[in-house]
Amino acid sequence: MLTTHPFDDDHLHEECGVFGIYGHSDAASHTALGLHALQHRGQEAAGIVAFDGEHFHSHRGLGHVADNFGSEAIIKTLHGHMAIGHVRYSTTGETMLRNVQPLFADFEFGGLAIGHNGNLTNALTIRKQLVRRGCLFQSTTDTEVIVHLIAISLYSTVEERMIDALRQVEGAYSLVALTQNSVIGVRDPLGIRPLVLGQLPSGAWILASETCALDIVGANFVRDVEPGELIILDHNGLRSIKPFVKTRSRFCIFEYIYFARPDSVMEGTSVYSVRKQIGRELARESAVEADVVIPVPDSGVPAALGYAAEANIPFELGIIRNHYVGRTFIEPTDTIRHLGVKLKHNANRAHIAGKRVILVDDSIVRGTTSTKIVEMVRQAGATEVHMRISSPPTTHSCFYGIDTPEREKLLAFNHDVEQMAKLIGVDSLAFISLDGLYRAVGESERNAKHPKYCDACFTGDYPVMLADQNGGQGQEGLSLMTEGL
Amino acid sequence: MLTTHPFDDDHLHEECGVFGIYGHSDAASHTALGLHALQHRGQEAAGIVAFDGEHFHSHRGLGHVADNFGSEAIIKTLHGHMAIGHVRYSTTGETMLRNVQPLFADFEFGGLAIGHNGNLTNALTIRKQLVRRGCLFQSTTDTEVIVHLIAISLYSTVEERMIDALRQVEGAYSLVALTQNSVIGVRDPLGIRPLVLGQLPSGAWILASETCALDIVGANFVRDVEPGELIILDHNGLRSIKPFVKTRSRFCIFEYIYFARPDSVMEGTSVYSVRKQIGRELARESAVEADVVIPVPDSGVPAALGYAAEANIPFELGIIRNHYVGRTFIEPTDTIRHLGVKLKHNANRAHIAGKRVILVDDSIVRGTTSTKIVEMVRQAGATEVHMRISSPPTTHSCFYGIDTPEREKLLAFNHDVEQMAKLIGVDSLAFISLDGLYRAVGESERNAKHPKYCDACFTGDYPVMLADQNGGQGQEGLSLMTEGL
Amino acid sequence: MLTTHPFDDDHLHEECGVFGIYGHSDAASHTALGLHALQHRGQEAAGIVAFDGEHFHSHRGLGHVADNFGSEAIIKTLHGHMAIGHVRYSTTGETMLRNVQPLFADFEFGGLAIGHNGNLTNALTIRKQLVRRGCLFQSTTDTEVIVHLIAISLYSTVEERMIDALRQVEGAYSLVALTQNSVIGVRDPLGIRPLVLGQLPSGAWILASETCALDIVGANFVRDVEPGELIILDHNGLRSIKPFVKTRSRFCIFEYIYFARPDSVMEGTSVYSVRKQIGRELARESAVEADVVIPVPDSGVPAALGYAAEANIPFELGIIRNHYVGRTFIEPTDTIRHLGVKLKHNANRAHIAGKRVILVDDSIVRGTTSTKIVEMVRQAGATEVHMRISSPPTTHSCFYGIDTPEREKLLAFNHDVEQMAKLIGVDSLAFISLDGLYRAVGESERNAKHPKYCDACFTGDYPVMLADQNGGQGQEGLSLMTEGL
Amino acid sequence: MLTTHPFDDDHLHEECGVFGIYGHSDAASHTALGLHALQHRGQEAAGIVAFDGEHFHSHRGLGHVADNFGSEAIIKTLHGHMAIGHVRYSTTGETMLRNVQPLFADFEFGGLAIGHNGNLTNALTIRKQLVRRGCLFQSTTDTEVIVHLIAISLYSTVEERMIDALRQVEGAYSLVALTQNSVIGVRDPLGIRPLVLGQLPSGAWILASETCALDIVGANFVRDVEPGELIILDHNGLRSIKPFVKTRSRFCIFEYIYFARPDSVMEGTSVYSVRKQIGRELARESAVEADVVIPVPDSGVPAALGYAAEANIPFELGIIRNHYVGRTFIEPTDTIRHLGVKLKHNANRAHIAGKRVILVDDSIVRGTTSTKIVEMVRQAGATEVHMRISSPPTTHSCFYGIDTPEREKLLAFNHDVEQMAKLIGVDSLAFISLDGLYRAVGESERNAKHPKYCDACFTGDYPVMLADQNGGQGQEGLSLMTEGL
Repeated sequence: MLTTHPFDDDHLHEECGVFGIYGHSDAASHTALGLHALQHRGQEAAGIVAFDGEHFHSHRGLGHVADNFGSEAIIKTLHGHMAIGHVRYSTTGETMLRNVQPLFADFEFGGLAIGHNGNLTNALTIRKQLVRRGCLFQSTTDTEVIVHLIAISLYSTVEERMIDALRQVEGAYSLVALTQNSVIGVRDPLGIRPLVLGQLPSGAWILASETCALDIVGANFVRDVEPGELIILDHNGLRSIKPFVKTRSRFCIFEYIYFARPDSVMEGTSVYSVRKQIGRELARESAVEADVVIPVPDSGVPAALGYAAEANIPFELGIIRNHYVGRTFIEPTDTIRHLGVKLKHNANRAHIAGKRVILVDDSIVRGTTSTKIVEMVRQAGATEVHMRISSPPTTHSCFYGIDTPEREKLLAFNHDVEQMAKLIGVDSLAFISLDGLYRAVGESERNAKHPKYCDACFTGDYPVMLADQNGGQGQEGLSLMTEGL
Repeated sequence: MLTTHPFDDDHLHEECGVFGIYGHSDAASHTALGLHALQHRGQEAAGIVAFDGEHFHSHRGLGHVADNFGSEAIIKTLHGHMAIGHVRYSTTGETMLRNVQPLFADFEFGGLAIGHNGNLTNALTIRKQLVRRGCLFQSTTDTEVIVHLIAISLYSTVEERMIDALRQVEGAYSLVALTQNSVIGVRDPLGIRPLVLGQLPSGAWILASETCALDIVGANFVRDVEPGELIILDHNGLRSIKPFVKTRSRFCIFEYIYFARPDSVMEGTSVYSVRKQIGRELARESAVEADVVIPVPDSGVPAALGYAAEANIPFELGIIRNHYVGRTFIEPTDTIRHLGVKLKHNANRAHIAGKRVILVDDSIVRGTTSTKIVEMVRQAGATEVHMRISSPPTTHSCFYGIDTPEREKLLAFNHDVEQMAKLIGVDSLAFISLDGLYRAVGESERNAKHPKYCDACFTGDYPVMLADQNGGQGQEGLSLMTEGL
Repeated sequence: MLTTHPFDDDHLHEECGVFGIYGHSDAASHTALGLHALQHRGQEAAGIVAFDGEHFHSHRGLGHVADNFGSEAIIKTLHGHMAIGHVRYSTTGETMLRNVQPLFADFEFGGLAIGHNGNLTNALTIRKQLVRRGCLFQSTTDTEVIVHLIAISLYSTVEERMIDALRQVEGAYSLVALTQNSVIGVRDPLGIRPLVLGQLPSGAWILASETCALDIVGANFVRDVEPGELIILDHNGLRSIKPFVKTRSRFCIFEYIYFARPDSVMEGTSVYSVRKQIGRELARESAVEADVVIPVPDSGVPAALGYAAEANIPFELGIIRNHYVGRTFIEPTDTIRHLGVKLKHNANRAHIAGKRVILVDDSIVRGTTSTKIVEMVRQAGATEVHMRISSPPTTHSCFYGIDTPEREKLLAFNHDVEQMAKLIGVDSLAFISLDGLYRAVGESERNAKHPKYCDACFTGDYPVMLADQNGGQGQEGLSLMTEGL
Repeated sequence: MLTTHPFDDDHLHEECGVFGIYGHSDAASHTALGLHALQHRGQEAAGIVAFDGEHFHSHRGLGHVADNFGSEAIIKTLHGHMAIGHVRYSTTGETMLRNVQPLFADFEFGGLAIGHNGNLTNALTIRKQLVRRGCLFQSTTDTEVIVHLIAISLYSTVEERMIDALRQVEGAYSLVALTQNSVIGVRDPLGIRPLVLGQLPSGAWILASETCALDIVGANFVRDVEPGELIILDHNGLRSIKPFVKTRSRFCIFEYIYFARPDSVMEGTSVYSVRKQIGRELARESAVEADVVIPVPDSGVPAALGYAAEANIPFELGIIRNHYVGRTFIEPTDTIRHLGVKLKHNANRAHIAGKRVILVDDSIVRGTTSTKIVEMVRQAGATEVHMRISSPPTTHSCFYGIDTPEREKLLAFNHDVEQMAKLIGVDSLAFISLDGLYRAVGESERNAKHPKYCDACFTGDYPVMLADQNGGQGQEGLSLMTEGL
């Protein structure tokens, strides 16, 4: 089971991806493929629940989609014409099977499975109330709060109960749910996390976190699910409900910078195009004389292409990535421990030696990897190293579904750009400006009063209240039990 | 993982064994040993939960105790001075990890783990009510009903809540529970399943299903937990509560015949002695001329020794048992499929050929194994085969924690002794009489009005109402979800 | 994979069992069953090679037969109408896959597989010569010497080459071989290890170490393969060759005492009968007043039955064996480490307390287990403990295929019976006399000049020269390579 | 265990990579890293043998280097200051553990381990002779022929014996060997496969297939091992011997095109530079009007960069690669079976729709993948698709260590370029010319009389006799035995 993912290192991590399908005899198989295309959104666990008209069938496991759903034997157990699936990234210690989604429960009205991308900011507060009432939690995920709220709702239909539950939670969520009659998709009122609607030529409906999951199954992109929209897919076709108070949306701008796959289209815009455009803006904002533009692979490539084109400096694959890094090569001996970044990257010496290099990367979180890459590039003979970053400095933690270190560990939290340049060991360092970033996504600048996107990790401007944070609800007390796998 | 157990074949199966310990720094290790001694009560899964003053630590797995708790690494994770454990037998299809006990839950008042031997006869009825109220069940075990009843109880202390819960359930139960302050043991008002109290020389208290689990850890037997008694072991020592209306007890007489280990002492009487005595009674009731008494190993040995001694006929190991049968030798090819009983047993030809044989076995359930053994003994040259059974005919299903086939599949349900003899292929067949059985356990006869034991499987005299059965609550609707392991 | 075997503890270990079959379409399946019946002769590895007229098919693995050959998928790969198989016990450190038999090699004349029970006493001496000649050894087994001698033989047919090879080796061997035309069985000139011939009702021929392997597949016993006889089974039926100089045979007497299964018949005599008879002889030789005769299970049971019958003292199962001991319960914590024998045995207290006990066991090797069992029996309340052993004192190592500790570790090597009694903690200790043992197998006494059996472990009278021992050929230099599994 | 490699699909496969190190206390750890960097040369198995002055220690396994050597526990067993390692690609059916290298043997003179990259063209012929002589083969690899030739050589030192052996074999080989005194590296007289020499700052010597394996351990590149050179690394330092008749070298030109990692330097030239240069030559030779140049990732990227620069057409990542493809996602259901290439690649629709596309790939073997990629690009809206290939048409099989399909399955064997274009579905198709390829590696053209490189796969000009092919020695008769894993 390969649990380390190619986009590891010193990056922020998307915590989940979701997929749902209604009306195809081979629903589980399509879901497995969709999750495979969404693997970059969560590499630690995967799960699928299907419904065949009588029973729900579930399979969940730690590790990659292909490891868990690659065999026909497994797929066959998941029969039914409707299914939902989930891929999950989680921080160490919580990687327990009981937290792997989709969550499932037997209710008075029948069964219901839920998969969630995002993070609820008042989950702990509600959980406490529910436990006091006698509710027993089986996982430590925020998602289970929604399940219990549905169970105790006084409404009668599953849709009404779900809306009743969602009106009580706050935060970011793109959900897919599987009932005995329908597949349901919901996006929180701000639309922080993505969710798209597609359709197979056969007519079957699909919900997915990104359009690349539509492409893999041959589905056509229909439209983004709208912020605050609840979509019900059943034998009557598609119904759309907007049960929440209307507000301005705040889509996560980091999806464009790093999380989403470059071949996805989000909110009408190609992710790859945005990244190239950021590179162009960056070249304009912080030009420097150099001989070669080199991306930190793989995520820095599109921005580096844009930078090189705008600056008219040759683009070269000056750093080669080794894609064979599995889970286990983790510090077996001192020798390997001190190798650092070399297990994954090697300088293409012939194209670096004697040259002034511009390195393009997407972000700096703790700065650890950047330091090692710069050192490797210098050892390969670069005469100058200039680093250009395709995001503004990351100064704040995310509470909406992205795994960020505590704020104190963010390099940009307590260092200015000059200090960072010194620490990383570069001759110059520049980040794209906030306005530059907004220009790259098609705005003229960031509207400070009504920013179009959620950019809290750069600005601290959190669009949803952080009830659990303010109430001092630590994760520690979440369960008294630790369980061996 | 060896999941087939030596006492397989055509036998009834005990569904569980429990163990608890309070006040020893190496609590988990002792629990593992105790469960190992109780392995015959449940071979399909094992679990231990320990509490260290701050956190509960749990490890549960399918398979044998030694497979799951044999390594120091695992035992070390289960630190704490108090622990409970559970071994489980379950019918196929329900062998899911989420059903493995002890069950654990976080309550408003803290954490609680429960291990259960027995079966509740109104669990489905209560479950329905709880689901209607909004309770979400994570397992399909009857035990979880108790957990939810505790969670929603309006009493404040854990002991009061537990008593409140137990007053609502009906059936057979010997429970061990682990709270943040205590280890608790309870036996249902009729005392159908066993539970004993022991003490280590160091003073630590122990609860276990059988005395053999005290022996393995070097604990002294103190006394049986009484029917309807709740024992609390904490830093104040031992407290005993009798929260139920007092009734006549009805201990399961089959524990003496087959379930319990021969080296255990139950209700003051040695199990091995009872079995030998049944053999003696059987010899008196149904004497027959023969050359040799041969047990069907291993369970038939004590009764055969008693029979041989009383009848003054030589005892011989005329059937040799192969103890190397693991889980996997199950019908790989036609050749093996037709072998039947030979994978486990072989006739000791030299001691059978030309002889009149009395075969002694403990029970006949479906009759399949008996038929094959008789055939094997005849092929080995026996001139006559007489079968003697150390239990009365099994005519009814058990609903108190023993896995019995549906009543229609019990050979004795629709055949009299003569018919059975013919089907099995013996020259004569005799079962111990009900009164003979009661004599073997020290009574003068069965008191039809107030039978001392639960003997429902032989008589249909069920001492506890079968609410779920009567209400037609099938197991089928228990959960809408099936989960791959 | 369960690699510890029920007959563990302080016993000598048979090192191998073999099986061969010619002329059945389901040859591999029968071989798997035969090996299963021979599992007690080797628990650490198992292998089968089949031939289908064109190709040899092999599967070998560490662990039990059922673990390796229990699935239809594996058996199906081993197609062919002829097959041989092997189970292996080996000392720690040598348990490498490359040593698992049957060995196979491609020769000029075709393929050949060999399985070997026994031990060659000049293997190292020959190996050195072969390596000097340029032969490359792939295993560290003595058996491979035979394979290379066949490869370099100047004779043309495989039978001639095999005879040429066997004339050069010394020691104990019962071999089965699989050629492209035949299954071959050979027994060394002294017939130290057993080998029997059987036939299925269908006509297919079978070779096996013991008759219990014939029973399991439903084959009839034809006769023992004679010492020094080579049997060829092919499409012409059975041919017998006696290529060696005729000598008096010396069958291993320990096979009767402990190694063989009690339901096997060896050299015309029932193993179980011999064991009972030893018990009777022992009762005559060393009577003592007592209340109960208790076997150390399982191996001590037949002798205890004989002893009890002869001495007219009640026989009781005073020690109960737990058959659930797998490989892993090995010293996880101090608690378990100090438990010793209790993981496997428990005193049946009710039948020991206050009694004078005669314990019957088959042998004392190091004395470690005996000491713990006596201690357990005393703790259970025995007033006296007398131990009776159904073999003479084991004073010498075996070099003919039995795993014995170095001579210095044998308790009887440097202690007389009185000293041993004191060390073990018994009130009296007695071993069967050599003559008593010979009487039990039907002789009037041991003929000192021409003993009928190999009894070197009791007498030091080694019937085959120990070339490797005398030449000081240590096992250490066998290979320069150690390989991780 | 991830056994499918990123560079799968319709490509030729390098069959092996080797690594050796002398004089470092952490030799095995360095070897594991070196093999990790060479993983692209063989993904199916990996092995390391180390020598500690007294014993050889070996670990070999199927799967990736990180899966087999990622744990400290394994590395610790491989102690010693000298070690060699091997990664292996092999065709299905031969993936048996006994074929995993390094091979090891105990000789009269001591132990010897060998790892081999390449293929011997007279191995079967010699093998037959050796078997006739009585040699027993344990593997089906050609490499074992060398081992036996060493064993039977009449020379006395290991170096002399090795030279004696190598003078008898023909074909391509870059070998590393480990003796009790030295690490030895050899390259065949034509130098068909690569082998480089490096040195750690500490002085320890290193041999490796490519320079990227020097980079990962921080070693300096010293020089290429010369064709026909044998290098001995021991406590005296480095000795070079040239034991073969001097001939013109013929390095494999396909190493530049596809096999080697782009960051390696071979025969003095950067692999990445050659690939870019091929792209430039290709743009000159076969220009076409288009809007965008798109590489087939990952291998087509450097050539596409060169093409785009020379043609002055924008370069875009128009196809996105999913790096999460493990071993198991192979045709579980019809749905997935018909997906084809989409599991790994997705068209970046926004950058393809409405455009004239030039696709750049490195080679066409069977043509299956190309067809699917073209179809995907057309479905994404490309108005024209022109394919440019950075190698000449592959018309002949390789017998020097590269896995090629039978000649009949090569698309270029029986189709001209026009036919191929039609089959693949492109508007135009062009391959680099042979002379263009030679220009890209720095020659003015291909010297038809004395070509500088081995280009047999394009020309059929095989520089080493194909003895086994001409003698009709099929692989089928290699061993009579098939072994389950």
